[in-house]
Amino acid sequence: MPEYLSMDKNELLEEHKKLLDTYASYKAQGLSLNMARGKPCSEQLDLSNGLLDALNSESDFETEDCPDCRNYGNLTGICEARNLFADILGVSPENIIVGGNSSLNMMFDTIACMQELGNSGEKPWNQQGKIKFLCPVPGYDRHFGLTEYFGIEMINVPMTENGPDMDIVEKLTSSDSSIKGIWCIPKYSNPQGITYSDETVKRFASLKPAAKDFRIMWDNAYIIHDINDTPDSLLNIFDEAKKNGNEDMIFEFCSTSKVTFPGAGVAALAASENNLKILKKRYSFQTIGSDKLNMLRHIRYFKNVDGVLAHMQKNKAILQPRFKIVIDTLERELSELGIAKWTNPNGGYFVSVDVLDGCAKKVVELCKNAGVVLTDAGATFPYGKDPKDSNIRVAPTYPPLDELKKAMEIFCVCVKIAAIEKLTNNL
Amino acid sequence: MPEYLSMDKNELLEEHKKLLDTYASYKAQGLSLNMARGKPCSEQLDLSNGLLDALNSESDFETEDCPDCRNYGNLTGICEARNLFADILGVSPENIIVGGNSSLNMMFDTIACMQELGNSGEKPWNQQGKIKFLCPVPGYDRHFGLTEYFGIEMINVPMTENGPDMDIVEKLTSSDSSIKGIWCIPKYSNPQGITYSDETVKRFASLKPAAKDFRIMWDNAYIIHDINDTPDSLLNIFDEAKKNGNEDMIFEFCSTSKVTFPGAGVAALAASENNLKILKKRYSFQTIGSDKLNMLRHIRYFKNVDGVLAHMQKNKAILQPRFKIVIDTLERELSELGIAKWTNPNGGYFVSVDVLDGCAKKVVELCKNAGVVLTDAGATFPYGKDPKDSNIRVAPTYPPLDELKKAMEIFCVCVKIAAIEKLTNNL
Repeated sequence: MPEYLSMDKNELLEEHKKLLDTYASYKAQGLSLNMARGKPCSEQLDLSNGLLDALNSESDFETEDCPDCRNYGNLTGICEARNLFADILGVSPENIIVGGNSSLNMMFDTIACMQELGNSGEKPWNQQGKIKFLCPVPGYDRHFGLTEYFGIEMINVPMTENGPDMDIVEKLTSSDSSIKGIWCIPKYSNPQGITYSDETVKRFASLKPAAKDFRIMWDNAYIIHDINDTPDSLLNIFDEAKKNGNEDMIFEFCSTSKVTFPGAGVAALAASENNLKILKKRYSFQTIGSDKLNMLRHIRYFKNVDGVLAHMQKNKAILQPRFKIVIDTLERELSELGIAKWTNPNGGYFVSVDVLDGCAKKVVELCKNAGVVLTDAGATFPYGKDPKDSNIRVAPTYPPLDELKKAMEIFCVCVKIAAIEKLTNNL
Repeated sequence: MPEYLSMDKNELLEEHKKLLDTYASYKAQGLSLNMARGKPCSEQLDLSNGLLDALNSESDFETEDCPDCRNYGNLTGICEARNLFADILGVSPENIIVGGNSSLNMMFDTIACMQELGNSGEKPWNQQGKIKFLCPVPGYDRHFGLTEYFGIEMINVPMTENGPDMDIVEKLTSSDSSIKGIWCIPKYSNPQGITYSDETVKRFASLKPAAKDFRIMWDNAYIIHDINDTPDSLLNIFDEAKKNGNEDMIFEFCSTSKVTFPGAGVAALAASENNLKILKKRYSFQTIGSDKLNMLRHIRYFKNVDGVLAHMQKNKAILQPRFKIVIDTLERELSELGIAKWTNPNGGYFVSVDVLDGCAKKVVELCKNAGVVLTDAGATFPYGKDPKDSNIRVAPTYPPLDELKKAMEIFCVCVKIAAIEKLTNNL
């Protein structure tokens, strides 16, 4: 199959006709396949069922700093849980707050806290008029959604293969004091699966933003989420930031949502002493403490960070063939056509596909009409607006293998149809 | 023993001397007793240990509206949990959001939501300049704390034996549109254990506040928390409010913190369709969903509301002797002296003691120095300021019986000492 771009209109239309036949045959199957969200599949969840046996009616509920995990108390979580997350993130346990089941919730509350209380001696963000956040794109729709909720203006920053374009990040943050933060998924980014290079991390850690109250939202959601045997490695941002006295610039987040159960995991954040003081003030009014039995359940189940890492090896074995199907299908169906590019990540939950400009919405719509649900086109950009209408996030983890295979085949057909329709209109 | 008020100075000083001797002997024992917080005791927590066996690695995780409770989803909780809380609160399941482990957190988030989004077509509260909340006093320190956190001015409203003084509530809410809400613990109020009379509930339900966006925070924390066999009953505020088209005026809250585990219970709120629409908007940015396995655990354990109520009978059996010790000691030691009044509630978690004006701080300090920790004097009032310095909250649930007995004896000695010091200074 030659590149579509080198075909003439008639050749393209003939190809289009064939593709429509194939598409119709898929459509006739009345399928219902879902590649929309980064959800673990049942097999992954089954790996953690033992978690539910880790506590029972005969258990001991006392821990190092909590006489009875069943009762009130421990605003920042139990000591053993702080230790575990400290080991995962490579920080000191004193810098950890362990929360409820959602790191998104902790991010939301962190932004809310900066809005209401401010930091670094500056006014609360919500008293500073229009403020802005940098948003590396493509990125995570829920980051953008909560930023928009708080009325914070979002500025797109292009991703490179090494992370956000740091020339732009440095230029914007150093010149505009209304820029108060940036969203980062530094390892296996959502949706591209890019891990920030050492240089990128170092440049983040040595930023000199115009706003004293600028904060990096370092969402390390996929820190231990490899999908093959050539995993990426990421520099420790806090270690680097300390060299520049920049620890106060960083909030780091992670959770066990994609380690144990998305519906019943444990989330945590890491922050400097100054930042924790502000966060704890808010937390002390918001709650008496998060679910300590679920923390204890995780501790008893995993024992320590090695237990967590061994568990993630089993997760990897389940995810590897899924990602292989996605990449193999894309390679086979699209690699020679010149109408799509995609990432081939070593971890995380997504493959990012860029189709021809102006075609993403059409592809998602075609897929939907054939029974394949994808993340909405545009969702990977602030305000749901992909300026080029080209990026599509593919989430391979949830569907069974056979469904995934079929869904990817349909996806490729739709990419081709949309491409030809664009190309022939322009001819 | 005659009333202190009828004794002359010399008699009082003699009595004072004896009391100081008794006090010194207690102090010499180096006690460490805690009656500060409304925490269930270990025996109560043990009642719910079976909860931890209700889910295990072999469990089925599918429910009516959730294919797998281990995974993401169900922003407002699983159907079965909404049903259970609907039965407890006497509302429709459509009006319920089931959250995480903390109703305080849901109250905090509700106020935050009104601050950020507003309601009833009015501007968000945080864009309306100075706004105010009515606070029936004495009341719950954490309600007042979070209200202060949001910069909302608090106005004291005296409690009567039938609930807040409704003449004042009606007068203030109808005349001042900057008053946006009121905190209520309508059944077994904290700290007095007062249940609002039918008339009080009806008057709340038919309020005509000047502010369209006025909201009643109906914290039904102790709705099923009787401590004896003559329980109070409370009218259903939503039923009453509907008669007046006032459903939008009410947010109701409850949790299983004092049913199962304070550290790992399930919280819920009830609200009208209009209010839920606003709350759900915020929730949709804040989280993907609360811990569904813990909801499921509670459902499997209790089966239904009858299971919950039967469980609370066991709780009652544990609490009844504790409250008896408190009341009996107060009766025996103080009833004839004319220096203290207290409530004798049929449920809830507290006994409220009013000592002579100007003596509460002194009593709490004396207790502390003898090894008995009480809730800080003033904590039951906004800003921690009891204008009369007379109210003390006694929390009998947590200490073992023998400790509680001793703590109450010491408490009474301290009440007497403080009273005599006040009386003799004034003679």
